[in-house]
Amino acid sequence: MALRVGVIGGGQLARMMIAPAVELGLELRVLAEEEGMAAGLAATAVGDYRDLDTVRAFAADVDVLTFDHEHVPQEVLRALVAEGIAVHPGPDALQFAQDKLVMRARLAELGVPQPEWAPVRSADDLQRFLDEHDGAAVVKTPRGGYDGKGVRVVRSGAEAQDWLDALEGSDALLAEELVPFVRELAQQVARRPGGEMIPYPVVETVQRDGVCAEVIAPAPAATERLAEVAEDIGRRIAEGLGVTGMLAVELFETDDERILVNELAMRPHNSGHWSQDGAVTGQFEQHLRAVADLPLGDTRPRASWAVMVNILGGPAEGTLGDRFEAAMAAHPDAKIHTYGKAPRPGRKVGHVNVAGDDLDDAVYVARAAAAAFV
Amino acid sequence: MALRVGVIGGGQLARMMIAPAVELGLELRVLAEEEGMAAGLAATAVGDYRDLDTVRAFAADVDVLTFDHEHVPQEVLRALVAEGIAVHPGPDALQFAQDKLVMRARLAELGVPQPEWAPVRSADDLQRFLDEHDGAAVVKTPRGGYDGKGVRVVRSGAEAQDWLDALEGSDALLAEELVPFVRELAQQVARRPGGEMIPYPVVETVQRDGVCAEVIAPAPAATERLAEVAEDIGRRIAEGLGVTGMLAVELFETDDERILVNELAMRPHNSGHWSQDGAVTGQFEQHLRAVADLPLGDTRPRASWAVMVNILGGPAEGTLGDRFEAAMAAHPDAKIHTYGKAPRPGRKVGHVNVAGDDLDDAVYVARAAAAAFV
Repeated sequence: MALRVGVIGGGQLARMMIAPAVELGLELRVLAEEEGMAAGLAATAVGDYRDLDTVRAFAADVDVLTFDHEHVPQEVLRALVAEGIAVHPGPDALQFAQDKLVMRARLAELGVPQPEWAPVRSADDLQRFLDEHDGAAVVKTPRGGYDGKGVRVVRSGAEAQDWLDALEGSDALLAEELVPFVRELAQQVARRPGGEMIPYPVVETVQRDGVCAEVIAPAPAATERLAEVAEDIGRRIAEGLGVTGMLAVELFETDDERILVNELAMRPHNSGHWSQDGAVTGQFEQHLRAVADLPLGDTRPRASWAVMVNILGGPAEGTLGDRFEAAMAAHPDAKIHTYGKAPRPGRKVGHVNVAGDDLDDAVYVARAAAAAFV
Repeated sequence: MALRVGVIGGGQLARMMIAPAVELGLELRVLAEEEGMAAGLAATAVGDYRDLDTVRAFAADVDVLTFDHEHVPQEVLRALVAEGIAVHPGPDALQFAQDKLVMRARLAELGVPQPEWAPVRSADDLQRFLDEHDGAAVVKTPRGGYDGKGVRVVRSGAEAQDWLDALEGSDALLAEELVPFVRELAQQVARRPGGEMIPYPVVETVQRDGVCAEVIAPAPAATERLAEVAEDIGRRIAEGLGVTGMLAVELFETDDERILVNELAMRPHNSGHWSQDGAVTGQFEQHLRAVADLPLGDTRPRASWAVMVNILGGPAEGTLGDRFEAAMAAHPDAKIHTYGKAPRPGRKVGHVNVAGDDLDDAVYVARAAAAAFV
């Protein structure tokens, strides 16, 4: 009988697990938030992932549980684990992806390089941090942020007052130094429950308005040292946090050649979409292998360069189908991935991958094909 | 709304359309022969493809109909076309894939090189053909044969008596010269309804017991002339027979450098499985693009060589899961594709693709990974 992998969450990350699951002969089952989601084809249940009974009923028919997102509450996860259900990544690892203060504290214990940071509970706390950091800081809500939400650059203690007012009990905001980075990178590592790890090459990510817009794999002009440092950081975090499945580590590269950890994700990640068409083993296949405790696949690039460009927003007029034809006709070497989502401004509705031996060509084709949809 | 592609037949060819359909955002709907088939995930109906009402009801909810196999009767196909349903390939093309005598006659009209052949209706007919062809011939039932079934090498007019006895009315068997071939090749071409065509590189196929066992892409030591001749044959047949979707042409290469057409298939074909991991656009994606009348994708190889080895039979003991782990652990660069079929001796239950710059390495890895399953 086929191994059954249950995915909590029906978004595009779950959707993109369908293709490798079919080829590998794994039975993918998805608990979707509602009908008609991106991963609808594999949805076997619809319900609230915060409700233990819902998740428990879903988990009863799978061999391992994994995730499309990191929002399943700790109490739900811990109850499942206590009942003997295989959950990857497990709650002990996921807590670090769910709370940025907990993550920062743990990375400090591990000695992983990161921006200077502090918990802040008041405008005075924040002003003190600002005074010590050239008058600027990034303030983050520790929980629930994504794609630039819950992140704000501030220059006075009063600029986070609304978030401070909303804090409860001993909660705090996270203040981080505003890192003078020259570019952003991402390092992915896959890790099996037994500890076997395989890294991907470090990539360059380009963000626009807090959202990943483009990825180039491997990171251009990456020295051997930089690649080694990034890989080492990825391995130390995967091991130190007990991650199972795919880990993505977002990194800042500074003008003085330091690499600092920005954010973490414990699932397939936008920075790894290039691997679907650019690596021997794509990140969605690798995540399935890792969480199902199967041997990991080769992560070598298939070509000198791979470029991923997100399709944001979708067509202002005309149908997605019309845009599709234009993009396909003009760029037969572009690999178009769509998420089955209704387009609206700024929403990620798909991405384009292009692999090749000439970086400029690949960037041009990927951007042009993605632009055909906007 | 997503374009809906209906596939008649729930076998592995339909199954392998699921992955590219998800990524392209096409809605795949499958009319399966029974529950639990290889393409079960996309099955929206179960029924008999020979029954017009069943197929008509299935076709009502799709934008285009295509096939996992070539067995849908002409009268069903023609009734659907008469009702305005888009069918690709259509009945005018499919008749040549359904009846080898009709195919031979049409290829003769087109002047495409093929083995000498004749219809035979009696042992005397067959003996005459044998006398004219060094005493040996290949006899085929014109309809319903596959994977070596319905094919027999004979050396006397009496050796096909059972098949001759079963003929009805004006039916005939097909007798072909026994071609002294040095190897077998296959040429694939994708063709859109409007006539746009894109060929794949010609490949070498290795058959064992009448079943495709291995494919090497492109065909080793293929001269430019051979590649051109094969491509030209593929294009002439695709155009001359009005094929839409993927066409595969099985070819003999003789010791005097002739290329002769052996068989045709108007669908994704075992000789093209390498393209899933070895070409920019795999044949399953290309078939969907062609039948949905979308611009065709780039067919360039992703690496110098791609090798496909079929997984036949499956495990004599132990579970497929155990074999999987062994194959994956030993060969992290092998791309394993499984069909979700119960293994039995000689049955194709999956295949392995390996792409790389060294042919010997790729052949070794693909064979070794496939052997782990047997």
